[in-house]
Amino acid sequence: MEALRALVTRRETADFKTVDVPEDTQQDLLRAAMNAPAEGQKPWHFVLLSDEKILKDLTILVHERDSLQTAPMSVVICANEMEQASIAQWAIDCAAATENLVLAAHAKGLGSSWVHVFPSKERMRTVGELLGVPQHITPFSVVFLGKPKKPLSKRAVPLETERIHLKGW
Amino acid sequence: MEALRALVTRRETADFKTVDVPEDTQQDLLRAAMNAPAEGQKPWHFVLLSDEKILKDLTILVHERDSLQTAPMSVVICANEMEQASIAQWAIDCAAATENLVLAAHAKGLGSSWVHVFPSKERMRTVGELLGVPQHITPFSVVFLGKPKKPLSKRAVPLETERIHLKGW
Repeated sequence: MEALRALVTRRETADFKTVDVPEDTQQDLLRAAMNAPAEGQKPWHFVLLSDEKILKDLTILVHERDSLQTAPMSVVICANEMEQASIAQWAIDCAAATENLVLAAHAKGLGSSWVHVFPSKERMRTVGELLGVPQHITPFSVVFLGKPKKPLSKRAVPLETERIHLKGW
Repeated sequence: MEALRALVTRRETADFKTVDVPEDTQQDLLRAAMNAPAEGQKPWHFVLLSDEKILKDLTILVHERDSLQTAPMSVVICANEMEQASIAQWAIDCAAATENLVLAAHAKGLGSSWVHVFPSKERMRTVGELLGVPQHITPFSVVFLGKPKKPLSKRAVPLETERIHLKGW
């Protein structure tokens, strides 16, 4: 898929087909995420989950729609807090990595749903416990992935000119 | 440019040619940024700057390399804090929009440099004053844009397997 088209047509997917994501596609997605920009040391780690029970538990923890349980896999993007002094810093880098991951999924014909874990202290704690992460690792986001059940809208949001300011505010 | 290739080959650019960015390219970039995912209300606004004096002042405020002054334009991504209760929330959304903008620039053959404003209180204040933003608007990032002076490396960062965790941590 052409890059500009991928950027404007990615949409959240809530219903998935129960078809596994091939391993080489998973690697494409992770490679895209790992090439996101980072300020200094890269903080990100990626936990890949495909077990039905753990995906169900994860969906409950993040209080999301039941339909996300149909996703054949999810990736939990985590931050190594020891890599960067400031929370805000690793959150920015992990957001860029998450965005690259969902864009790569879209380019490969997959749907995705980006669910926020950070900044909810409860979600960070419970998702961390479910995954068994060490103390210095913090879950940042969960991306549910899979073939979308229905074709997604291909329409881009048009330019909202009221959000554009020329030569200052 | 193919989307997966764009995702893994984007790199920071520090030196630019003094060639203007065409208006339709600017619109492509803003359209890409505005199609980033947001949790709830979209917080982002975009301030486009191309005046030489203001670009110089901006470079000084964010303490970046002098060479960024060669960029023919910059976009300051700002957040409307009234749109979202939590700082962390709008920072995540603005990070996704900034990432889409630099990816679109790369896809159009432009180089970019993503400079962090948030979470530095000093930078948020001084950049906000330079742009004359109202009180509820906070500068989040500055992206310097233009034709790169030298061709950039096309090599992707390979998969770092130590950052990948299967079936839990």
